[in-house]
Amino acid sequence: MDLKSLIREIPDFPKPGIVFRDITTLLRDPDGLRYTIDFFALQCINNGLNADYIVGMESRGFIFGSPLAYKLGAGFIPARKKGKLPAAVHSVEYDLEYGTDSLEVHQDALPPGSRVLIVDDLIATGGTASATAKLVEKIGCELLGFGFIIELRDLQGRKYLPDVPIISLIEY
Amino acid sequence: MDLKSLIREIPDFPKPGIVFRDITTLLRDPDGLRYTIDFFALQCINNGLNADYIVGMESRGFIFGSPLAYKLGAGFIPARKKGKLPAAVHSVEYDLEYGTDSLEVHQDALPPGSRVLIVDDLIATGGTASATAKLVEKIGCELLGFGFIIELRDLQGRKYLPDVPIISLIEY
Repeated sequence: MDLKSLIREIPDFPKPGIVFRDITTLLRDPDGLRYTIDFFALQCINNGLNADYIVGMESRGFIFGSPLAYKLGAGFIPARKKGKLPAAVHSVEYDLEYGTDSLEVHQDALPPGSRVLIVDDLIATGGTASATAKLVEKIGCELLGFGFIIELRDLQGRKYLPDVPIISLIEY
Repeated sequence: MDLKSLIREIPDFPKPGIVFRDITTLLRDPDGLRYTIDFFALQCINNGLNADYIVGMESRGFIFGSPLAYKLGAGFIPARKKGKLPAAVHSVEYDLEYGTDSLEVHQDALPPGSRVLIVDDLIATGGTASATAKLVEKIGCELLGFGFIIELRDLQGRKYLPDVPIISLIEY
């Protein structure tokens, strides 16, 4: 299946000069959604990414991370924006174009030593994925790899990630 | 499986006097996640909720709506907070305790006449679900029903929803 044909291009979003890759057109297609999750899971298996937990980043990472965890028989851990999780958290800060943001996971979500796969919809400059990796490694987990639906190769985000397998289903 | 035993209670979150029902302890349990989605899907089938599209509300609705759509062979439509979706949107406003908020779906996401199931993690007073239903009906879709993991019965949220089947897997 040609997944790329299901991704819509929106020029000048969120600001002039940026071409936004819109995954909602893929999600609304039942065959596209089915194929994406099945193919994603197969790629994980083929790369030996046998994770105990899948960490998905708020909020588009939830849309792909949760069904992937369901399909692979893993647990799903949401990495959320500051203040959203109700219990005690581990937190990591990362740089944005202007200022900083942070991501949090519950302190008891990921037991040290557990095997973790980090999932998001898209990797651009790699800032969010790199921060999440630091968080996972600080907790003492084994980071098995990363999974993205879309990779924007020109932005070279994978240069900033640890040396583990990186799956991306669609490349630009 | 006793799903309720996988829900954690957090007292005084997000403010004093509120007992927050934390679904992250269910999500991180592989069997809990698997059973939740399978049981949810079975309840949909048993209630004749044969949806073309599942609409999930940002952001915890994404975590359950997306795998449910995957399992049922439906499309998944994210209902997002204002300004997050890149193309033209339909929008609905709803009241919060202080002020208002709004939810949006892409204008071309839901063809008029299509059959829609609305999914969120929890129904409390029903404000978000009711607003999403208005949005779906304004577009001209057939609202088949609602699905929630948790229903807080005391708050009587279902009183404010249209007269369609409402599935909730866990009740308090």
